[in-house]
Amino acid sequence: MDKQIFAFIEEQRGEYIKWLTDFCRIPSVAAQNRGMKESTDFIEDLFDKALQTKPELLPTRGYPVVYSHLKGTKPTTLSFYNHYDVQPEDPIELWDTPPFEPTFKDGKIYARGVADNKGNLIARVAAIHAIKQVTGGLPIDIKFIFEGEEEIGSIHLADFADKHQDKIQSDGCVWEFGYRDADDRLQVSLGVKGMLYVELFIKGANTDLHSAQASIIESPIWRLIWALNLLKDPNDRVLIPGFYDSITPITEEEQELLSHYLLEEKSTLDHLGIEKFVNGLTGEELKAKHIYEPTCNICGIQSGYTGEGSKTVLPSEAFAKIDFRLVPGQNPHQLLEDLRTYLNTHGYDDIGIRVFGSEEAARTHPSEKLAQAVIETIGTYCDLPPNVIPNTPGTGPMFDLCQRFGIPSVSFGVGHFASYTHAPNENIRVDDFIENIKLMAALVFKFEEKMNENGADLSEPVTNATTV
Amino acid sequence: MDKQIFAFIEEQRGEYIKWLTDFCRIPSVAAQNRGMKESTDFIEDLFDKALQTKPELLPTRGYPVVYSHLKGTKPTTLSFYNHYDVQPEDPIELWDTPPFEPTFKDGKIYARGVADNKGNLIARVAAIHAIKQVTGGLPIDIKFIFEGEEEIGSIHLADFADKHQDKIQSDGCVWEFGYRDADDRLQVSLGVKGMLYVELFIKGANTDLHSAQASIIESPIWRLIWALNLLKDPNDRVLIPGFYDSITPITEEEQELLSHYLLEEKSTLDHLGIEKFVNGLTGEELKAKHIYEPTCNICGIQSGYTGEGSKTVLPSEAFAKIDFRLVPGQNPHQLLEDLRTYLNTHGYDDIGIRVFGSEEAARTHPSEKLAQAVIETIGTYCDLPPNVIPNTPGTGPMFDLCQRFGIPSVSFGVGHFASYTHAPNENIRVDDFIENIKLMAALVFKFEEKMNENGADLSEPVTNATTV
Repeated sequence: MDKQIFAFIEEQRGEYIKWLTDFCRIPSVAAQNRGMKESTDFIEDLFDKALQTKPELLPTRGYPVVYSHLKGTKPTTLSFYNHYDVQPEDPIELWDTPPFEPTFKDGKIYARGVADNKGNLIARVAAIHAIKQVTGGLPIDIKFIFEGEEEIGSIHLADFADKHQDKIQSDGCVWEFGYRDADDRLQVSLGVKGMLYVELFIKGANTDLHSAQASIIESPIWRLIWALNLLKDPNDRVLIPGFYDSITPITEEEQELLSHYLLEEKSTLDHLGIEKFVNGLTGEELKAKHIYEPTCNICGIQSGYTGEGSKTVLPSEAFAKIDFRLVPGQNPHQLLEDLRTYLNTHGYDDIGIRVFGSEEAARTHPSEKLAQAVIETIGTYCDLPPNVIPNTPGTGPMFDLCQRFGIPSVSFGVGHFASYTHAPNENIRVDDFIENIKLMAALVFKFEEKMNENGADLSEPVTNATTV
Repeated sequence: MDKQIFAFIEEQRGEYIKWLTDFCRIPSVAAQNRGMKESTDFIEDLFDKALQTKPELLPTRGYPVVYSHLKGTKPTTLSFYNHYDVQPEDPIELWDTPPFEPTFKDGKIYARGVADNKGNLIARVAAIHAIKQVTGGLPIDIKFIFEGEEEIGSIHLADFADKHQDKIQSDGCVWEFGYRDADDRLQVSLGVKGMLYVELFIKGANTDLHSAQASIIESPIWRLIWALNLLKDPNDRVLIPGFYDSITPITEEEQELLSHYLLEEKSTLDHLGIEKFVNGLTGEELKAKHIYEPTCNICGIQSGYTGEGSKTVLPSEAFAKIDFRLVPGQNPHQLLEDLRTYLNTHGYDDIGIRVFGSEEAARTHPSEKLAQAVIETIGTYCDLPPNVIPNTPGTGPMFDLCQRFGIPSVSFGVGHFASYTHAPNENIRVDDFIENIKLMAALVFKFEEKMNENGADLSEPVTNATTV
């Protein structure tokens, strides 16, 4: 059966790539309210054409969630969580090709969203299409849950999940993203970091002024800089009181997983054109920081004149966009409260805080059947075994959609080490895309098999030697 | 004679306003290389039409200096220094009317450059036009020196002055700017602050990254913020070693001038919509800080995503534009060196410095004949005596063009308290413009009179009771 399905996928190669490039032409930037309706229209057409079904558009207070439940023969349900929105494409001048005109070069497809997340969304639809076409049905129930606000912090997904607990319930959820590491192994991620995304903003005088006034008129951007300086020290240590206190300690098992996690230091440094990592870290310390430590990152800052040459102005306002990546134990709501208190304590109550996203961290245990099914599928069909990590350094609404309802979740996908997600020249390799379709199809059968095994070995250690 | 000339100026009111609005339609933004040739063409046409002369376009390594020397009957020379470039108009969205479409409202003309510096340039040409038309000649020699790079730091004016010492030589120079204070008195300024304008810039990885990488990849914007924090503390004290050490101490005479200087605290605060000045200063301390102290101001800063909503990115580069306003004794070249050393000492040798301007501070003594002539002209023809200050908080290439060649300089002009120079909605009052033309014409005769007085009273104190 596998061979027939894989052969069918190869036959459909051109068609599946066309689905993807057509989708990538839509500039579905939720942050800027562009191309969102076109995206849901596209998915509706695709489901109609490929799966002979009409998905539901479930409303939220923001963009709708596209939902579809396809019935299978066995009483097991596998869900796929993806998103149809993409990051803004700027800085546009650093793209080698137009971000919304998918371009083929050196075996890769370049386009905003091709890795994050349209390549994965299409690969999963394609896998289900292939199974249905070849077998005439589905072995288990499949649910698709595609939100439109992942790149703006999944701000309405928790509410959505509360309201539609019956619809989202499943025996396991394949999460939206996934990348190959530099050694060409597929990375399998069992969790995500959480996030608090805020904008700090401040206004001074009601107009920009000639900078000669700077001797006596307070500068909002200087105040913002002094306040930012209070948030993190040059050793990358976050200074907000209590920030590290509630973090769940790393278990020995997690430490063990980390030792198998691959971080290609030299190729990463070479690829990025830098000489060292934060604090000069290497080896296990570096990996531990990447996977297990929270961050405080400035995504953007602006004030005053930023054009060519010079302008002597005292700007009247300033803002900075900051994302904190959180780890298990840290609560984004508590952090927001602590941040406000901390700024006030230091006299910065004139700095406002806008919240753009708030998510808790999540992890799935490697002994869960979905995790086993993914690892075994990759072990069976790929040349190289996967790199399994307890969580990625990235974020998503995994806790809101899965863990708080007891649903295990595992992530792997079409991207690779240099996919440039959230950056100019985002890309995936065409062959990775096609292989991922095959793996997703195979996983459906493998998951069915695992779920119908005798449950007695649930507590057994996972035995794939290269990973855990 | 005064009355005839003033009457002629009134008759020409519409014509002079047309000269000004035609000039303001040209977007002569030197920082962006816009409208510069059109500006010198305009001035050539104006001189041809109004003064029956063709000015010289003296080349520099940047934009040319427009120069004209008109002969008079007496062996005295008065020069006018102005500039034909303007500040960039952004933030464009905060203008109520298009910046390069001069608009009349409530007795004011709104346009970029109308106060700084086209209103003054035109008023001075108009004054000489009126004298020539009414008297058939000029009582003294007049020189016009119009540069095109004042708003980008007069970067080639010092070289120009070195090369053309004969051409710039005069017995006194009327400087480019001038404003009425909130009490409607004309401010007469005898000096300017100096400046060092720099851009600090830093690059990290060779591409923007997904912000999940922030745990291990260094952030250029964080490094810039930590470095900026080293430059000035929250009490507005500049922290660069030696910054205050070389400042020429304030004399008793300067302290005395300051006591007559008007700074309308309440109306300024109300007008700007703020509650207090820097450090909560008031009274003499506030005035002293404004006039006698140097600044370190952030004109602009940018890094990463600054659009709507959120984008989770680790930006690969960052920059900040900074102007230091300097006072007598401070050397901009020394400061640049000290800044570089200071950053290096703290490990920020990865932060580059671009220099966009470098000027020394300058002051003219109030007993100089030009100063006396200006103060007496205003005393004679205006309802209110002037506010005389030893220097403005602003900057210009006064030292390079005047003081180092022994030329006294005094500044007064067409602007008012709310002219919004360098900011959106820049404007002047039409009546101020017309009155300034009259004052400039009267000054020509008054200066001739002063220069031909017995020189014995040079060291006498100036007696205008309201000012010194």
